[in-house]
Amino acid sequence: MPEVEIVLVEPLCEGNVGFAARVMKNFGFTRLVLVDPCEIGDDAIARSSHARDVLELAARKSLEEVFAESDLVVATTGELSKSVCTSMRMPYYAPSELREILSNVDGQVSILFGRENWGLNNEEVSRCDLICTIPTSEIYPIMNLSHAVGIVCYELAHLPRGTYRVAGKTEREALIDHFGTFLERIDHPDFKRQNTLLMLRRIFGRTALTTREVSTLHGILRRAEWHIDHDMPRQGTP
Amino acid sequence: MPEVEIVLVEPLCEGNVGFAARVMKNFGFTRLVLVDPCEIGDDAIARSSHARDVLELAARKSLEEVFAESDLVVATTGELSKSVCTSMRMPYYAPSELREILSNVDGQVSILFGRENWGLNNEEVSRCDLICTIPTSEIYPIMNLSHAVGIVCYELAHLPRGTYRVAGKTEREALIDHFGTFLERIDHPDFKRQNTLLMLRRIFGRTALTTREVSTLHGILRRAEWHIDHDMPRQGTP
Repeated sequence: MPEVEIVLVEPLCEGNVGFAARVMKNFGFTRLVLVDPCEIGDDAIARSSHARDVLELAARKSLEEVFAESDLVVATTGELSKSVCTSMRMPYYAPSELREILSNVDGQVSILFGRENWGLNNEEVSRCDLICTIPTSEIYPIMNLSHAVGIVCYELAHLPRGTYRVAGKTEREALIDHFGTFLERIDHPDFKRQNTLLMLRRIFGRTALTTREVSTLHGILRRAEWHIDHDMPRQGTP
Repeated sequence: MPEVEIVLVEPLCEGNVGFAARVMKNFGFTRLVLVDPCEIGDDAIARSSHARDVLELAARKSLEEVFAESDLVVATTGELSKSVCTSMRMPYYAPSELREILSNVDGQVSILFGRENWGLNNEEVSRCDLICTIPTSEIYPIMNLSHAVGIVCYELAHLPRGTYRVAGKTEREALIDHFGTFLERIDHPDFKRQNTLLMLRRIFGRTALTTREVSTLHGILRRAEWHIDHDMPRQGTP
């Protein structure tokens, strides 16, 4: 697993630097490097919000130092018009592909984001090991710097999720079985039974039921069964 | 292929609204809806940059209108501390999972983003069909509004096209209503009723039921009702 640092190259707007620090921390990244940045003042601090530590601990480095210290340097670039599709800027990888590539890297990885108005220049891009481009709309491909940092950090964060328990196969099968006996109990036509059970299996299969939901569904069936077994027939109905 | 609109519920800061418009357009989304927003002035326009059209064409709607007009409404929420893991806010889906689910939906999808300081309230969340949560760091999970919009738009940008007919909102509501009367008929405890219906709404919301499946589920309920009404009580059972 690599150690990732986010490098902002000559950012022009301190608000973006603060926002970048914040979204980095949102996805678990804390190593921010600033190369010849604008002045970092109150606006940056305000926008960093609870990531003020990331902002204040940001390292100041030269690009030379970044290239010297990193095992792998990634350039981020905007989507390209055909006219600038030079070999220097090709091939490029989407953030999700970058994640795949970096998952095999062990060491220091620096991801460079360029100036708000101009990105990285050709010389900077040409020195990088990899190029990453966020797939954007052709109509308006130019992202705000902090939004671009956010997308890359989002993709690179291998954050565990899942705080609820999803029903396993056995639990799902037991539920289908219960529906099977229930359908029998309510005289669901034999010739439709298998298709209906298959449909239920598909629904439950794709919906990733939680254990709690499975137990509620059992409860509903049991309750209906009890009423079928115990309620007196209503008067006057056929 | 769903038509996706991004709904900002009572945004407090116009800069965030402008930034949200920009990042939407970066990923090809243009339908912005504002529910009772702050004043939208120069700061919003400046931050929208070349997405000024998205900002200026934003629809003003009430939440009632959003729920009435949409086939599927998605709530976005922050990561939860254990203390608020109520059934109302579970289960939730990552943006990538949301993409999978929406890929089968045909119709109007509204994705709700809450207030900067407070998100969506419980009542708003409970009315939604699906919950989407961006997996963030436990250390600092609170994202800037426009960054959250950016991540969701990034994930939804390349939706595959659906191929079969999915039940619309009216059909899903009718099914939920049927379950409501059914639960009443089987004396499902009052105090559990709303939670159970909410759970069913969530299951059906995320599973993108086809019209055929909806009709089969109605059939099962009707058949069970008939048996409850007509079967003689069994001997010897309590």
